[in-house]
Amino acid sequence: LRRVVIAGVGMTRIDQHFDRGIRDLFKEAVTKALDDSGNPEVSHYYVANAYASLISDQADLGPFLLEYAGCGCIPVTQIGGACGAGGNAFLEGFEAVASGKSDIVLVGGVEKMSDIPQKQVTSVQSTCMDQEYEANYGLTLAGINAMAARSYMQRYSATREQLALFSVQMHKNAVKNPYACLPFEVTTDKVIESFPIADPLTFLDSSPACDGAAAVVMATPEIAQKLTDTKVEVTGVCQSIDSVSISERSTLLTMKSTVDAAEKAYSMSRTRPDQIDVCEIHDAFTITGFIALEDLSLIERGKTGIAVEDGTIAKDGKIPTNPSGGLKARGQPGGATGVYQIAEITQQLMGEAGGTQVEGAEIGLTHNISGFGSGATVGILRRYA
Amino acid sequence: LRRVVIAGVGMTRIDQHFDRGIRDLFKEAVTKALDDSGNPEVSHYYVANAYASLISDQADLGPFLLEYAGCGCIPVTQIGGACGAGGNAFLEGFEAVASGKSDIVLVGGVEKMSDIPQKQVTSVQSTCMDQEYEANYGLTLAGINAMAARSYMQRYSATREQLALFSVQMHKNAVKNPYACLPFEVTTDKVIESFPIADPLTFLDSSPACDGAAAVVMATPEIAQKLTDTKVEVTGVCQSIDSVSISERSTLLTMKSTVDAAEKAYSMSRTRPDQIDVCEIHDAFTITGFIALEDLSLIERGKTGIAVEDGTIAKDGKIPTNPSGGLKARGQPGGATGVYQIAEITQQLMGEAGGTQVEGAEIGLTHNISGFGSGATVGILRRYA
Repeated sequence: LRRVVIAGVGMTRIDQHFDRGIRDLFKEAVTKALDDSGNPEVSHYYVANAYASLISDQADLGPFLLEYAGCGCIPVTQIGGACGAGGNAFLEGFEAVASGKSDIVLVGGVEKMSDIPQKQVTSVQSTCMDQEYEANYGLTLAGINAMAARSYMQRYSATREQLALFSVQMHKNAVKNPYACLPFEVTTDKVIESFPIADPLTFLDSSPACDGAAAVVMATPEIAQKLTDTKVEVTGVCQSIDSVSISERSTLLTMKSTVDAAEKAYSMSRTRPDQIDVCEIHDAFTITGFIALEDLSLIERGKTGIAVEDGTIAKDGKIPTNPSGGLKARGQPGGATGVYQIAEITQQLMGEAGGTQVEGAEIGLTHNISGFGSGATVGILRRYA
Repeated sequence: LRRVVIAGVGMTRIDQHFDRGIRDLFKEAVTKALDDSGNPEVSHYYVANAYASLISDQADLGPFLLEYAGCGCIPVTQIGGACGAGGNAFLEGFEAVASGKSDIVLVGGVEKMSDIPQKQVTSVQSTCMDQEYEANYGLTLAGINAMAARSYMQRYSATREQLALFSVQMHKNAVKNPYACLPFEVTTDKVIESFPIADPLTFLDSSPACDGAAAVVMATPEIAQKLTDTKVEVTGVCQSIDSVSISERSTLLTMKSTVDAAEKAYSMSRTRPDQIDVCEIHDAFTITGFIALEDLSLIERGKTGIAVEDGTIAKDGKIPTNPSGGLKARGQPGGATGVYQIAEITQQLMGEAGGTQVEGAEIGLTHNISGFGSGATVGILRRYA
């Protein structure tokens, strides 16, 4: 395998972009990423998206997006996998460069959720679940997470306040992120008292479905160094899967896909969990963040509540988690989320993360899932000299 | 690049499978392909699909399909691109093996169109068009093809009967194909008099949207020869794109994406068009087949009508075209179509195509597009000693 670095990144602000379509968002992110990487000749594009055929009636995104962004007539692969599409595309891009298939690739993710009424978002997002066995009976993704929250609180004597405090921390982080969807602070009381989504989870335990695009350019270090000053290498990235139907799972307190992908990525990267300086994890709901931190071996089983209370996951804590604000407060633009994480961690390791910067971060982790962990991709990025 | 062979193939009958879901179809095709290739250890799955999120409310197909098919916890990438998804996935699978990234991959395509009323199919298929610029104003894919047909007939003095005769030939071929959706004969009169879809094209000029799944296992020859008796190598496969919006095109009589992909695939494979013994081309409508044959340099510009009349494209003709019956009569199961083509050409080159066999076929071509050629993938397969 060849070494793979991130040559450049680009992001749009995450928001309800009522005045902009899916291709406008993609164009902005791609243009920024190409500029940031010295406008290289990309040989293959990977486009991640979860819901454009449902929301924007556009099923064939590759040519659609590339033409408008002025990318030229370059081969393009459209990658799906619901909210895990970004991670899946990142894996494809990495493997294309690592295997020698391509020298320079661009991985872009884009999602436009705000073209449908907010109440339809739940049914759109439930397409990542098993329709015939579960969604058709009324179960929602929020419902699964709520069951997981109840189960977690009971099993580990965690408190409702601890879950809410995770949201408080994410919102605090987002205030410093110019790309964040919800850059304002909240309090535990506000979280608990906001309107219920699926008890015990409330509106402010949930990540906002919104619009955004992110892109990263990947290349070999030899090529990238001619174009730009990158110092961020992808040293591991692995994907794993689990049953989609939760009725096939023995517990909701862990996601086999995350555990498996993380083990493989740590091993591939020769990195131990205690070496991770900063991480961007998939906190679709507050409880999802708890489970992720434990599945990634960053926090001991059942101890995330305490870790949230004692500042472990804060930006200046031992395990700085989601300095961007995470899905919770940076926002959750479906298939783009996994690409945002790569862009964010790259900026962290380059020391270019501005107000969200974790001091001295040299090793970062990204974690993107689909549904309730039907699929998971874990990436490990390292700064090199 | 390493050499890549097709180690095994599997298909379901194409039909309106009202009694079977998307995962049942996928399982059948994958099980057959794995059996056919000696049940190898697949290291990566590629799943092509166009419309499952719109029709079956399933957006995260990788884990969903693999679990039910009993494939185990193997990395999986879901590939989109409307009706060109199968070709796109074939390209990814090929490149994975060729680059050394994977030793054995499975490329599967699946589509289930019959879960919605037939009249909704038009709007589902129009998601491969530009919604904001064209589909929203009432243009349909059939409409674009009808304009192309009018334009073609005028430009080349082709007749309505010649278009209809293409359909007659495809239906004749399909009678011998046990997997075909429409295995019955039609006459030119019947085609012309069947109900109009978009004048001059009628129902029997159009391919039926239906259900089906196909899968192919790809590996290096060294690995494949330990498992099976394959003799079919993929010597070229290239993808190209064009504008989605037809208002950006200067003509409807050629698809730039096909021309470009074909040129590259011929060159990669060191094959001339006149060496092709058998082809499976993307004839979504009769006129689409005309344009494809000319874009692929298999027939001279404007001469397809005559070639249809004089038997050139018949199974025993000079350019045996779609012995399966093509999209027109084998059927058009969206994202699975491109994978069917690979499976069919593989059987042809192995001499295992039964009643559809083209005698002595040693070099075959596959051609899969999305929309009206927004994307195109051309593959060239060769039998080796």
